[in-house]
Amino acid sequence: MGFSTGFTRMFGVRHPIALAPMGGSAGGALAAAVSQGGGLGLLGSGDGDPAWLDRELPALAACGKPWGVGFLTWAIDVAAVQRVLDRGARTVMLSFGDPAPFAAAIKAAGARLIVQVGDLGEAKRALDAGADVLVAQGTEAGGHGARKGRSTLPFVPVVVDLAGDVPVLAAGGIADGRGLAAVLALGASGALLGTRFQATTEALVDPVITAAILAGRGDDTVRSRLLDVARRSAWPDRYLARTLGHPYLESGSTDQVQYQRDLTNGVIPPVPVWAGEGVDLIDSLPGAENLVGDLVAEARAALDRVSPHQ
Amino acid sequence: MGFSTGFTRMFGVRHPIALAPMGGSAGGALAAAVSQGGGLGLLGSGDGDPAWLDRELPALAACGKPWGVGFLTWAIDVAAVQRVLDRGARTVMLSFGDPAPFAAAIKAAGARLIVQVGDLGEAKRALDAGADVLVAQGTEAGGHGARKGRSTLPFVPVVVDLAGDVPVLAAGGIADGRGLAAVLALGASGALLGTRFQATTEALVDPVITAAILAGRGDDTVRSRLLDVARRSAWPDRYLARTLGHPYLESGSTDQVQYQRDLTNGVIPPVPVWAGEGVDLIDSLPGAENLVGDLVAEARAALDRVSPHQ
Repeated sequence: MGFSTGFTRMFGVRHPIALAPMGGSAGGALAAAVSQGGGLGLLGSGDGDPAWLDRELPALAACGKPWGVGFLTWAIDVAAVQRVLDRGARTVMLSFGDPAPFAAAIKAAGARLIVQVGDLGEAKRALDAGADVLVAQGTEAGGHGARKGRSTLPFVPVVVDLAGDVPVLAAGGIADGRGLAAVLALGASGALLGTRFQATTEALVDPVITAAILAGRGDDTVRSRLLDVARRSAWPDRYLARTLGHPYLESGSTDQVQYQRDLTNGVIPPVPVWAGEGVDLIDSLPGAENLVGDLVAEARAALDRVSPHQ
Repeated sequence: MGFSTGFTRMFGVRHPIALAPMGGSAGGALAAAVSQGGGLGLLGSGDGDPAWLDRELPALAACGKPWGVGFLTWAIDVAAVQRVLDRGARTVMLSFGDPAPFAAAIKAAGARLIVQVGDLGEAKRALDAGADVLVAQGTEAGGHGARKGRSTLPFVPVVVDLAGDVPVLAAGGIADGRGLAAVLALGASGALLGTRFQATTEALVDPVITAAILAGRGDDTVRSRLLDVARRSAWPDRYLARTLGHPYLESGSTDQVQYQRDLTNGVIPPVPVWAGEGVDLIDSLPGAENLVGDLVAEARAALDRVSPHQ
């Protein structure tokens, strides 16, 4: 038995689960598998690189299910969004920045706008910009998030109250069916999962990273900007990223020349191991299509334990 | 219809709700009201000051329902625990420090030991010390918590998995029935609430503090050690406290002499306004007995929305 929510009804998907459009690792195969499993697959287009889209978008567009594309708002222009709309995207997710300049193009194409927010001010501005769905992201999330930010459990119900009829997805710290059940109880219309989908057979992730996620513990994750500085990333300094431990985080070094040398020599992982606090709960490497169904079955079981059906 | 959990069965209480034993403000009247409402009232004894206990304990001991006493572990000796056991406490909650030296006295009295933990290492040590219940506290919580700490949503299920048959209460960021429903779905046996009970008619709280909590927003809460330094508190520096905004947090000042002067002149609140991130959800000043029932009814409604009974 599935869950029917404002989100599932809006997108015509079976399950209240969305793939976090993780830049680079949420490629066409992973997004298509999530959509095939009954969730909403969102391609992690990041800065909208056309070559990457040329490679990853066709598999997704051919999946025959609802799908979308996610961008880093601070890294793109309207042309990047127009490009995926022209290629059939009917859902665009914008994270980290002002969505307002992009809304008109998305609406004109008859597409849906999903906006990720990290505090109440961002939530209000996203609603003003015409967001069809909000993603309330807590600081538990792997990868980047608001420097100050909020925690998922107390943040979601406040965004739900603010959003009225606009569906809210919860993000951050959700890695199993219990987490999905919990955020549905908070009033969310579903969950957007990142780290959990990094550890799937379809994710575009180096095996070193996969192994680190499977072994990683939430107690070991850290939020910092240091690795963005060391690796000369263009991420604005108003965002921190949650990762597993890293030699540069331990040493405190931001030596960019040494970082490149260490990369070349394989002394450090090819990218930071972005991982959320829910990483404790991840100890398997399933296919993403089956994972979606398993998460829903676990959520159902969790709710039945609390509230047995007579 | 109530919730039956490992916690409610162990203590013979009707509802899966415990009062956080907030030092000074969770006095006898508040704890008794929570117990009368069907939850577990825990007196906030802090450092075990005998004069404060003489004043607050009689009303609680006379309530005719299960009750207990909470301490700051780093601030007490075994004699403080023995004192409340001798006066009839059948439940002792220890937070912030090693519970092991106190376990024998508690067990010898046939009493239950509740231990609050902030990371997985603490959870393991509490189980080794013989804890009957764990409280998994997230950094969303108002007041003090582990410097690094964990967030409630991803932390609770991991503690639940570790604890096996030992019931786990969730704490941090829970201020309404949706939060209670969510942590039950995560596998917790109940919730321990602090900030929500600060805004009740029975809390021993200055009206200035009550008004600040009713007006406060989660976006405005901050975790810091600064106010403990400025007010010359004995709290060890491995703990931070979450409070609403404060002139000293804004200025960054730790001038202890000026702080005392500002206190005397009423320029700053009499104590820091300890408040969790769930403070957004608090906009009423109910009696605590009714509040317990209202939280349970809200939780039931939240679960019924997600998982309608046919």
